[in-house]
Amino acid sequence: MVHNGIEYGDMQLIAEAYDVLKSVGKLSNEELKDVFTEWNKGELLSFLVEITADIFGIKDDKGEGHLVDKVLDKTGMKGTGKWTVQQAADLSIAAPTIAASLDSRFLSGLKEERVIAAKVFNAGGVEDSLSNQVVDKKKLIDDVRQALYASKICSYAQGMNLIRAKSEEKGWDLKLGELARIWKGGCIIRAIFLDRIKKAYDRDANLANLLIDPEFSKEMIERQSAWRRVVCLAVSSGISTPGMSSSLAYFDSYRRDRLPANLVQAQRDYFGAHTYERVDIPGSYHTEWFKLAKHSKI
Amino acid sequence: MVHNGIEYGDMQLIAEAYDVLKSVGKLSNEELKDVFTEWNKGELLSFLVEITADIFGIKDDKGEGHLVDKVLDKTGMKGTGKWTVQQAADLSIAAPTIAASLDSRFLSGLKEERVIAAKVFNAGGVEDSLSNQVVDKKKLIDDVRQALYASKICSYAQGMNLIRAKSEEKGWDLKLGELARIWKGGCIIRAIFLDRIKKAYDRDANLANLLIDPEFSKEMIERQSAWRRVVCLAVSSGISTPGMSSSLAYFDSYRRDRLPANLVQAQRDYFGAHTYERVDIPGSYHTEWFKLAKHSKI
Repeated sequence: MVHNGIEYGDMQLIAEAYDVLKSVGKLSNEELKDVFTEWNKGELLSFLVEITADIFGIKDDKGEGHLVDKVLDKTGMKGTGKWTVQQAADLSIAAPTIAASLDSRFLSGLKEERVIAAKVFNAGGVEDSLSNQVVDKKKLIDDVRQALYASKICSYAQGMNLIRAKSEEKGWDLKLGELARIWKGGCIIRAIFLDRIKKAYDRDANLANLLIDPEFSKEMIERQSAWRRVVCLAVSSGISTPGMSSSLAYFDSYRRDRLPANLVQAQRDYFGAHTYERVDIPGSYHTEWFKLAKHSKI
Repeated sequence: MVHNGIEYGDMQLIAEAYDVLKSVGKLSNEELKDVFTEWNKGELLSFLVEITADIFGIKDDKGEGHLVDKVLDKTGMKGTGKWTVQQAADLSIAAPTIAASLDSRFLSGLKEERVIAAKVFNAGGVEDSLSNQVVDKKKLIDDVRQALYASKICSYAQGMNLIRAKSEEKGWDLKLGELARIWKGGCIIRAIFLDRIKKAYDRDANLANLLIDPEFSKEMIERQSAWRRVVCLAVSSGISTPGMSSSLAYFDSYRRDRLPANLVQAQRDYFGAHTYERVDIPGSYHTEWFKLAKHSKI
């Protein structure tokens, strides 16, 4: 089932790459076909990238142009992505890329509402910046490729940790590396990338997160500048990249030794006496924040 | 219960505002206290912003400096946020801001892993850019205020739609405007902002989304440039703002009449014959993508 959650993530990330290249980079379907065909020769080699290249080549048999442009932007679903997100919440595993992919399907379904909202906001001047963007196509394509790959690593890191948590809960003793090998066999997410995951777990079967595997961390560091450029470009162009940006937020949260969660915990102790730990002295503490603050105001 | 999901969102968004101001803007606790005190006089007037200002003023009674800096960055939780996210998935309601807040709590709990990951990635050169950022403090504070407010609107839009979906499912016939009025009475999310929500539903009880209410849409349009600047600054500085960026992605997805969901649906039809609709002709279609692609390659 988690396989399907990961599949949702892969499909959403590819759709966002397509959106940025088409909407900001102004690539034609022919160019998109070439880009995905090229990507399918490298680290992104996978069934989903291959069929994406195919899709951009298909002409519409009922009219002019390419069929992909005639397909309605509403994505169906069968419930497995939902289940993955709910399991992740149950097991306290952050799975933002998979959640973003599910939410994107929900929002895609609100086609009529979106058409109305587009009128409300376009009249108000949103997306004006889009037409004025000057981009270097070659550089953009290369950046998007890196952003897609880095986001994919984050998505798989979440999915693998979810499977491990479930396996621990149930006492299944699943081997994550073995699972990656099995997935290569013939399922929808089959990809050369799964070899790297298998190798990561071969190096360390108890790896806490794919991100800190020596090979993957090196790849993340190499790609992070391009990734940040793509997300910023999308944000400033009014193009939503929920999967790529939530992957980046996942990366940036996971690799920080100090998050602003101290403030949230202080708030919880302020209004609910939920107590907090300290960075310097062991133990559980409670402070009468309100009384102290009131006192200092006198 | 959804109230608590919204509360998670509010707390997370405030924490991100704090993080950007502290980490990028280099504001001291005294300055942060002043900023939140000032914010509490305007559109952000709320219990949570008020207690946040208080928190920055409390000195550590066990050592030097301010207590907030000694609080461990691990956030506890009692399960209501989890429940909200699971309900949203069940009811097909996109609630990315609330989900991002929950995931942030999960990631905050992985303190030991984060300390290790920080070493792995800082050694690799991430976050180098932070120290070199030159920012105009006054402008940054004003931008962050707007980003916080715009993100909050998105978070409440999600929460309200979730409540409506649940109400419809159960036949409760809840009045959303009335609910906003009740929340103003004394709960943790009490805020002047709730008056605006009540007014929006007074104007239109069947409002599909708070974002398209005439007053809120105007506020979103006015704030979106500042909001995009803050998210971009955070992204390029390596500061994660999962709540703000998922709110922005929600806004940018909701207000687009054409999303890249056409590609996802084409992929689904390619590998699973899930069929698709067309933008121009009613009906449900299936295409033999693989055969056509193979044929064109010969």
